[in-house]
Amino acid sequence: MRAKETADRIRSMEIRGAAEIARQAALALKDEALAYQGKDAAGLFHALDEARQTLVASRPTAISLWNGVQFVMKGNDRETDLDLLRTITVRRADEFVKRSKEALDIIARIGANRIPDGAKVLTHCNSKAAIGCLIAAHRQGKNIQVFATESRPWRQGILTVNDLAKAGVPTTLIIDSAVRHIMKDLDAVFVGADTIASNGAVINKIGTSQVALAADESRVPFYVCAETFKFSPKTMFGELVKIEERGSSEIVKPGEIPDSVKIFNPVFDATPPEYIDSIITELGVVPPYAAYEIIVKEFGQEYIFTE
Amino acid sequence: MRAKETADRIRSMEIRGAAEIARQAALALKDEALAYQGKDAAGLFHALDEARQTLVASRPTAISLWNGVQFVMKGNDRETDLDLLRTITVRRADEFVKRSKEALDIIARIGANRIPDGAKVLTHCNSKAAIGCLIAAHRQGKNIQVFATESRPWRQGILTVNDLAKAGVPTTLIIDSAVRHIMKDLDAVFVGADTIASNGAVINKIGTSQVALAADESRVPFYVCAETFKFSPKTMFGELVKIEERGSSEIVKPGEIPDSVKIFNPVFDATPPEYIDSIITELGVVPPYAAYEIIVKEFGQEYIFTE
Amino acid sequence: MRAKETADRIRSMEIRGAAEIARQAALALKDEALAYQGKDAAGLFHALDEARQTLVASRPTAISLWNGVQFVMKGNDRETDLDLLRTITVRRADEFVKRSKEALDIIARIGANRIPDGAKVLTHCNSKAAIGCLIAAHRQGKNIQVFATESRPWRQGILTVNDLAKAGVPTTLIIDSAVRHIMKDLDAVFVGADTIASNGAVINKIGTSQVALAADESRVPFYVCAETFKFSPKTMFGELVKIEERGSSEIVKPGEIPDSVKIFNPVFDATPPEYIDSIITELGVVPPYAAYEIIVKEFGQEYIFTE
Amino acid sequence: MRAKETADRIRSMEIRGAAEIARQAALALKDEALAYQGKDAAGLFHALDEARQTLVASRPTAISLWNGVQFVMKGNDRETDLDLLRTITVRRADEFVKRSKEALDIIARIGANRIPDGAKVLTHCNSKAAIGCLIAAHRQGKNIQVFATESRPWRQGILTVNDLAKAGVPTTLIIDSAVRHIMKDLDAVFVGADTIASNGAVINKIGTSQVALAADESRVPFYVCAETFKFSPKTMFGELVKIEERGSSEIVKPGEIPDSVKIFNPVFDATPPEYIDSIITELGVVPPYAAYEIIVKEFGQEYIFTE
Amino acid sequence: MRAKETADRIRSMEIRGAAEIARQAALALKDEALAYQGKDAAGLFHALDEARQTLVASRPTAISLWNGVQFVMKGNDRETDLDLLRTITVRRADEFVKRSKEALDIIARIGANRIPDGAKVLTHCNSKAAIGCLIAAHRQGKNIQVFATESRPWRQGILTVNDLAKAGVPTTLIIDSAVRHIMKDLDAVFVGADTIASNGAVINKIGTSQVALAADESRVPFYVCAETFKFSPKTMFGELVKIEERGSSEIVKPGEIPDSVKIFNPVFDATPPEYIDSIITELGVVPPYAAYEIIVKEFGQEYIFTE
Amino acid sequence: MRAKETADRIRSMEIRGAAEIARQAALALKDEALAYQGKDAAGLFHALDEARQTLVASRPTAISLWNGVQFVMKGNDRETDLDLLRTITVRRADEFVKRSKEALDIIARIGANRIPDGAKVLTHCNSKAAIGCLIAAHRQGKNIQVFATESRPWRQGILTVNDLAKAGVPTTLIIDSAVRHIMKDLDAVFVGADTIASNGAVINKIGTSQVALAADESRVPFYVCAETFKFSPKTMFGELVKIEERGSSEIVKPGEIPDSVKIFNPVFDATPPEYIDSIITELGVVPPYAAYEIIVKEFGQEYIFTE
Repeated sequence: MRAKETADRIRSMEIRGAAEIARQAALALKDEALAYQGKDAAGLFHALDEARQTLVASRPTAISLWNGVQFVMKGNDRETDLDLLRTITVRRADEFVKRSKEALDIIARIGANRIPDGAKVLTHCNSKAAIGCLIAAHRQGKNIQVFATESRPWRQGILTVNDLAKAGVPTTLIIDSAVRHIMKDLDAVFVGADTIASNGAVINKIGTSQVALAADESRVPFYVCAETFKFSPKTMFGELVKIEERGSSEIVKPGEIPDSVKIFNPVFDATPPEYIDSIITELGVVPPYAAYEIIVKEFGQEYIFTE
Repeated sequence: MRAKETADRIRSMEIRGAAEIARQAALALKDEALAYQGKDAAGLFHALDEARQTLVASRPTAISLWNGVQFVMKGNDRETDLDLLRTITVRRADEFVKRSKEALDIIARIGANRIPDGAKVLTHCNSKAAIGCLIAAHRQGKNIQVFATESRPWRQGILTVNDLAKAGVPTTLIIDSAVRHIMKDLDAVFVGADTIASNGAVINKIGTSQVALAADESRVPFYVCAETFKFSPKTMFGELVKIEERGSSEIVKPGEIPDSVKIFNPVFDATPPEYIDSIITELGVVPPYAAYEIIVKEFGQEYIFTE
Repeated sequence: MRAKETADRIRSMEIRGAAEIARQAALALKDEALAYQGKDAAGLFHALDEARQTLVASRPTAISLWNGVQFVMKGNDRETDLDLLRTITVRRADEFVKRSKEALDIIARIGANRIPDGAKVLTHCNSKAAIGCLIAAHRQGKNIQVFATESRPWRQGILTVNDLAKAGVPTTLIIDSAVRHIMKDLDAVFVGADTIASNGAVINKIGTSQVALAADESRVPFYVCAETFKFSPKTMFGELVKIEERGSSEIVKPGEIPDSVKIFNPVFDATPPEYIDSIITELGVVPPYAAYEIIVKEFGQEYIFTE
Repeated sequence: MRAKETADRIRSMEIRGAAEIARQAALALKDEALAYQGKDAAGLFHALDEARQTLVASRPTAISLWNGVQFVMKGNDRETDLDLLRTITVRRADEFVKRSKEALDIIARIGANRIPDGAKVLTHCNSKAAIGCLIAAHRQGKNIQVFATESRPWRQGILTVNDLAKAGVPTTLIIDSAVRHIMKDLDAVFVGADTIASNGAVINKIGTSQVALAADESRVPFYVCAETFKFSPKTMFGELVKIEERGSSEIVKPGEIPDSVKIFNPVFDATPPEYIDSIITELGVVPPYAAYEIIVKEFGQEYIFTE
Repeated sequence: MRAKETADRIRSMEIRGAAEIARQAALALKDEALAYQGKDAAGLFHALDEARQTLVASRPTAISLWNGVQFVMKGNDRETDLDLLRTITVRRADEFVKRSKEALDIIARIGANRIPDGAKVLTHCNSKAAIGCLIAAHRQGKNIQVFATESRPWRQGILTVNDLAKAGVPTTLIIDSAVRHIMKDLDAVFVGADTIASNGAVINKIGTSQVALAADESRVPFYVCAETFKFSPKTMFGELVKIEERGSSEIVKPGEIPDSVKIFNPVFDATPPEYIDSIITELGVVPPYAAYEIIVKEFGQEYIFTE
Repeated sequence: MRAKETADRIRSMEIRGAAEIARQAALALKDEALAYQGKDAAGLFHALDEARQTLVASRPTAISLWNGVQFVMKGNDRETDLDLLRTITVRRADEFVKRSKEALDIIARIGANRIPDGAKVLTHCNSKAAIGCLIAAHRQGKNIQVFATESRPWRQGILTVNDLAKAGVPTTLIIDSAVRHIMKDLDAVFVGADTIASNGAVINKIGTSQVALAADESRVPFYVCAETFKFSPKTMFGELVKIEERGSSEIVKPGEIPDSVKIFNPVFDATPPEYIDSIITELGVVPPYAAYEIIVKEFGQEYIFTE
């Protein structure tokens, strides 16, 4: 799929989930490289860079998309041979996809270890990384029960219960308002992440922070499952993660409410690190406060400030 | 409306809201009395008692319904004159309706005093008592802004924003998951109550306790607006308020989720008194811990144990 | 049993538990009245008053003992007929015993209502009132499991598990240090009380406050079961409940530790009201903050200050 | 002193402290009655009523002043005999002064009981009721140490250390910012109150709520010492206690800061009941949540709503 | 001592304490090497590996034992010269013992710096590392007082007070239930650790987490003293630290309780990092959240996932 | 300025603020080097070392001063050529000043990013680093409002409002006791730091910890702005940061209080890391728990223990 179409599908939420967005964006660059009809490297680079901007603009708050595209483009501007530039771009896109998919497997294995036999686990929204842990625990032969929130307004919980049911995991659907009511009887919460800030805060689907608050109140461990490409180097430099707002049509049908009533529809919220037991990454189980160390290790201190 | 129809409408949630249920139940007894074609008081009493049981069974957890019906029936078994029994029943039903409606006005006036000019206030579900306070504050000329939750699964928030918009109150609708995200910027939360227990806990629409938790975390005062007939003498004797569960069709459409997925759909939850700033009743602003005192004052210590 | 012997047995902890102490003290006064060989009422009153002082001195911190003795002696100084004084004393002692025993039954019934089917409940030390609730819940056919702490140094937990096992309640013994470790999986804590202060604080067996703290941390409701004679009018006047300290021989055997090592062996501690869900009394389920109201209702405002 | 002068002195803070304000207001009415030169009761009543309004206006937020003046004026409008009206007014003013002064003695005795030997106690601002407890504990022979805050901007702490030093109580002065730093080593905090709301919140000198917060964080019991005339019936009807703001000259000298810099100088703040261990009144030690009960007992339910 | 005997003594708790277990296991391998009568390196390696398995199996949850044995065996499989293999094994065992003992001295010095003059310090169970800090502070001339818990069921507190008394440290013994009662008057808590997880949680003697909870409630700093070999690389990969359960005979004597009563006797519990002020290691004072960094630094990221 | 004069001005607080102290101390060594009249390097080194001791002694608790002087003197003892020693000393002093000043610019830029448009921000005392962030946010065109505490006893808040007013930032001055009262309406707190300990605790102007406590209670993010030279390697080795106490004349005028009244005037207090959202350094935004990592990275593990 070309960049414009990919960007459109990201924007329309046909492509969803931070990892998938990053991978599709990387693959879109690959397809741009393969589709390029021109004769010189500079032209391809120009086309790729335009594609990059198109992709990044489709979801400016998604740090994974930014990281994925950066991974494919790194060093491309120094390449002068057309074939080589095309080859490198394709290879790096494939590499990114492969690595990011392996990350999910490692996270699933680690996360499954954290789930005791007989556990009741809650998940919110539809995170591949979190669901992976739950299915892996089920496949380990553990007798687990999963509770999934509906996750209004897009109701990704419907996807989640379908994913889990297909894998044979006993699953119960609840509305978002029922979280605290059942929390006392749960053993763990597993969610994904959109972005992780350098101070350990986690930006994720709206409602995540109130699930975390309720878990903390009931002494239920709250795990965030996230590939390291979700950690945001930009937050090191003070950038506040912008919370995207979406339209009212996601919440009400036309005519359902008077015109004078406003709709406030934020997509994400921020969960403070003190409510997070651990972040499960492909590097292992880490406290949220290791975010700074992981960013520096993966991206380097200098990089952040030369940007 | 006769008792059977009233009970049906209560069961189908056409009649909704604790106060309205209690009043309609009282009026149903009045209509039974007026419609009675028999010749003796014993027959009418028997008819009324059957109607009472029908009504109470339509919503056994609604303490207001129980209190309302009790109010109309008190002493009826000792009446031997048919006309007098009919007259008394009608009069007491009218009295209950009048008193319970005045309660809402007094609560509105008191609650409005608690809302400072310029305040941003959140409400959950569709409580007449809570909405009354908000509209009264608006009518006092205060420049307030109200945020209303959607309140899945029945989405009573749509009713709430219509009620508020009709009264000219600036209103914004949010999904239930966005409560913690906006809480930091709010000045107060106003909700209603289904039942108030003798230890000060408040049973109300599912989600109320997690709104209260988020309010507590952000130092936002949380007010419960409730007529005193919501205070449950039964809890004095240790009865745990049963949380009604409703069917899955309120949450998903047929075929939307696999058969193996269960739905857990509790209607209410319990908010502990430590998250409640005050309960606003027609007797004034009281701490939730005054519940015991109010029950004893209204019903008497003996009554509870002779039941 | 005469007063001196009763006092000795209270002091040596042969007679144990606040209710039993109060009842035995009341009965000791009865036995003194019956054993009196003198000829006039003044002599009997003098003997009774000496007995009262002996009894109160055996456990000066036990408010129940003070209340029980006071109940029997009230008005005795105005009685001039020997037979009548003896009769009244006997009758009041019997009445106190009867009432305090019925209190336990009522508390058991109320408390049992608070325990849901399938519940895991913790108890600490050996409280008749708390154990009564657990056995009553079991007899209601509820499938409950009880965890009892060992309750060092006297290990009253051994008594508790024997009491519960005899009644057929499934029971598990744990050491005092294991409370927080298992708390997350529990549904309720039931304990007794030695004394309840006017601000709602509960004085009970050492360790109670740390069980309450752990319950609060895990959102587990913490119930105190107590007859109203445990509420202390003296605390209204600012008296701090003195925490009795006992000897080192309860904790170590001779020679087990060097002489230079001290032992600190307090018998009780104070649980603050914010960790207590409710107090279950024979008057019903009340918040701990109702302590002031109950004291005034039972003893009267004036009484407290004319003492 | 006549009403106008008294009002002026209240306004200029020459007369300070809620109890003193109330007493001086009562005495001002007495002096108006004695000074009245006219010939009829109606004239005196009119003069008294004008004086009442003048006094109330000098500090509209002081509930004690309102209560004190009300006490003296109650029933005066029904009196038609000039001499009798004068006599009654004088007698009631004297009675109010006597009762309010005895209240302080009782509170001192009760509060002193709450202070253990060897205790380190903090006080904030300059509350007669709180200081009375400290001096009474010292006179009981207890070896106590008092820490007093400076209490900017009026630095009432200077008065407090003088009061305590005169009574021989070992005293240390600290700045307001040092409260949390020393809190860990303290055993109790004693403060006064300006107004107590029906939900148990305490309005007192600015800074009180942050002292209470720090005490709560360190598990140090926080006592409020207050005569019952500080409990506000108006708050029952929802009235929010208005926090008086004063001028910038109390904080900076002319020219010390640029004109563009604003000063915000609130005189009081509100301490929520969850940070208060007990309120010590002349009726005994009560939890803050007993405020509703005390208001109803002292003023009656009806009174509040006929106002 | 040979491996089998060492393993037996570890199992019977004759050898106790994580450091001592690790050292004795290392020395057992040394003794196996010295006692080996065979002729070739492969045979010795085989013998050592069997010994290693025997040792690890004696306490599978003790990460120090695993680390100590691994330290001695690292690279042994590549050695083909019998004498050299024996020499290396001996030397590495001695080196491990020396390093681990120096670690205690460094920790003692660092920890002592953290204890102010005049401090009252609590310790739980019998941790060499924690006791070392206390004795070192005493030797620095600081006037400290130590409170030691009895630490049921093994009552290691008796050992602790003997250790401290021998060193001249003023010491008081309390029962485990008295911790919260005295916490308010303490200045610090020092405990050891069995295992430290990558998210900063500390596994230690049952009861540790409730001591930490009480310390947190009273703002008392809680220090964990632990050599870096207590940090568990396995937890990086999600492994939950298994809590060993032991037999009922440690808690009750035969016949003391009915057969129907169960005993639950967990040896350890987990203290969450938010209750820990710092971990004192031979690398310095670190926040508990540095656990991830220390594991990576000591063991390397790769190591963890090749295991 | 020579070392002695610089030391005097540091002691008298004419030179104030941790960064300025460090820079002036570095420059004092430069001036000593330039003023030196002797003939050999050893003499100059001796003079510099004496100056170093003089400077360090002027504020032994200021870790920045210690770090700054160390920076200039590092390696000086090995230099044998007089001119070269002088040149090096001058150059290193200049370098330290330049680096430390750039640090403030970077921190200002990062911190400004953290302040949203329309924000109300509180600052305490007079921190160049914190004020820099506020002014930078204002210059970014953001519409911010700053509240500054008076910061008794030295009233550095007067300096702060002057600094901010000069830069055109809308500013309001409040007394130290008003912090909690206004906290609910604030969006962020920015303060500086005197010293940062290896466990993440921040030592700063007295009152900082109670501002942080109030911010935490109201969910207001609390930022500490600090150059990395404020992180104390000494705390790694267990050293407790000593809290300087100053004289009573800073708080009261002669004769204002009786001689028997003591003054306790600590200059700093310690804010625990759990109340700190992030530390903003010239290396980026980090959680307080990264303190250990930053110290090791900047100073090295070995350095700490060879000291």
